[in-house]
Amino acid sequence: MATLAKAMSKFRLAVVQLHVSKVKADNLSKAQKLVKEAAGQGAKMECFNSPYGTNFFPEYAEKIPGESTQLLSETAKENAVFLVGEEDGGKLYNTCTVFGPDGTLLLKHRKIHLFDIDVPGKIRFQESETLSPGSSFSMFDTPFCKVGVGICYDMRFAELAQIYTKRGCQLLVYPGAFNMTTGPAHWELLQRGRALDNQVYVATASPARDETSSYVAWGHSSVVNPWGEVITKAGSEETVVYADIDLQYLSDVRQQIPISSQRRGDLYSVSAVQEGST
Amino acid sequence: MATLAKAMSKFRLAVVQLHVSKVKADNLSKAQKLVKEAAGQGAKMECFNSPYGTNFFPEYAEKIPGESTQLLSETAKENAVFLVGEEDGGKLYNTCTVFGPDGTLLLKHRKIHLFDIDVPGKIRFQESETLSPGSSFSMFDTPFCKVGVGICYDMRFAELAQIYTKRGCQLLVYPGAFNMTTGPAHWELLQRGRALDNQVYVATASPARDETSSYVAWGHSSVVNPWGEVITKAGSEETVVYADIDLQYLSDVRQQIPISSQRRGDLYSVSAVQEGST
Repeated sequence: MATLAKAMSKFRLAVVQLHVSKVKADNLSKAQKLVKEAAGQGAKMECFNSPYGTNFFPEYAEKIPGESTQLLSETAKENAVFLVGEEDGGKLYNTCTVFGPDGTLLLKHRKIHLFDIDVPGKIRFQESETLSPGSSFSMFDTPFCKVGVGICYDMRFAELAQIYTKRGCQLLVYPGAFNMTTGPAHWELLQRGRALDNQVYVATASPARDETSSYVAWGHSSVVNPWGEVITKAGSEETVVYADIDLQYLSDVRQQIPISSQRRGDLYSVSAVQEGST
Repeated sequence: MATLAKAMSKFRLAVVQLHVSKVKADNLSKAQKLVKEAAGQGAKMECFNSPYGTNFFPEYAEKIPGESTQLLSETAKENAVFLVGEEDGGKLYNTCTVFGPDGTLLLKHRKIHLFDIDVPGKIRFQESETLSPGSSFSMFDTPFCKVGVGICYDMRFAELAQIYTKRGCQLLVYPGAFNMTTGPAHWELLQRGRALDNQVYVATASPARDETSSYVAWGHSSVVNPWGEVITKAGSEETVVYADIDLQYLSDVRQQIPISSQRRGDLYSVSAVQEGST
C-alpha cells in the first residue's frame, strides 16, 4: 500500500494548447490527435481549450452529450486518461466537461463568474449578453488527488480556489482564454497567487494565439507548483506541454510554511453559502 | 467639495527602508531623520521598519508608550504625517504602531500570524517561541482613504486582506522582513496578488539588507497598484522610496474589471468570526 500510495503521489499532467479554427470538426479531430500524443508521453490527465467569442457561442453550442462531448468521452476512453475540456454547452452556459479514463462524464463545470469587463481603448467584453452563469462548485476525484475546476474569469475570484482547497483539492485546473490586455498583466500572476496562497498545483489551458481572430488569446498555458513557481509554460503557438505533479512535494511545502494550520479560524473564515460545510 | 475630494484622492506615500543596527538609539534617530526627509518630499504617510530576531525581542521590547513610540509620535507631529512603524512592543507581541499628524497613537496592530516556518537547509524560524499573537483587525482612517495594517507573515493570509478590503480599505500596509529564501520566492508575488485580488494599493516596508546580521532581510520595500503592477521598489540598501497613490485610478480599475460587484455572495463569503459583520 505504501508503494502504491507513493506511485499515486506523482503523475504527469499534459496541457494541450490548441490552435482553434472556425471549423468545429477540425478542432475536434485535432484535439483528439493531440490528446493521443500526450497520452503516449505518459500523461494521465489532460486539459485543452476550444473556440471563444460571444458571436460564436450560439452557433457552436451543443447539448451534453453531443458531438463534441461524445468525442471527448471516446478520446478519454481510448487513451485511458482524465480529460478536462472547455465546451460551450447548451445555448446558455460556458461549460467545462471532465471525462474519466473509462469515458464517463465525471462533471460539468458551468462558469460561475461571467466575463464582463470594460477597459477603455483596450478590451470590452460582455459575456453575460449571451451566457448565463453556473452556480455550483466543481470538483472530481482521481486516484492521484482531488481536482477543482474553474473557467477563465473564475480564476480572478480567490474565494473559489480557497473553497476548493478547503475541500481537499490539490490541483486546480482553469481552462481559459485571457486576451492581449489582461494576459500579459494578470494571467501568470493570478495562477501563481492561487498556487502560493493555497499551496496547490494550478494548471491553465489556453487556446493558441491567432492574430486573425476577433478575440486574440494570450496563450501561455502553464502549470504552477505550490511554491508559486511556474514549472511549465507554453508559448503562444499550438503545442502540448507537460508537468510532473508531485503530491509529496506539495505536502513538504505545506509542512515548511504551514499556513493551512496557522490560519486564524477564530478570526475569519471563507465558507460556501449554499452547500453547507466547507 | 468636489475639488477637495479630488485633491484628497491623491497623496504621496513614502517608505523608509532603514538599515537597522544593534544600537536602538541610532535606529530611532535615523528613522526620525529619514521621515523628516520624506515629509520634505511631500509625503503624507510613511512606513518604516526596525530590528528583527527572536533573540533581540526581549532586549528591545518596550511598553507602549515608551522611548520608541514617544519618538515616533513626536516625529509624526513635527512633520504632520501619518507614520506607520513596526515595533516590538511589550515582552510578548510583534506590534506595529500608527501615529497621526498630531502625534496621536491611532492604532497598535499586533501581528496576528506568527512566523513559524521550517524550510530544511534554508530557513527555520519560530517566532512563537518568544512572542504571542494578536487577535484584532487593524484599520485606521485618513483624509485620503482607510488603511489596513498587517505585519510581515500576515501577508501570506489572503483572508486578512479580503476582510480589510470588504471593510473599505484602499491601501494595505505590511511592514515586514522577508529573508533570503522567502524574499526572492514570495515577497513580490504576495504583494502583487493581494493588490490584484482586492484591487487595492499595497505597500511594504522592509529593513535594508545587512549581510552581517543573524537574520538577513531581503529588502525591496515596494508599493503595488490595484492593477497588480509594482510602481515603486527599493533595492536592498537603506533608502526612502516614494509612490503617488491615486484613488481615482483605483476606482477606474474597479470599474473596468468589476470583480467586487461580481463576487458570488450567493455561493461563498469571507467573513470575520469575532467581530460581527464585515
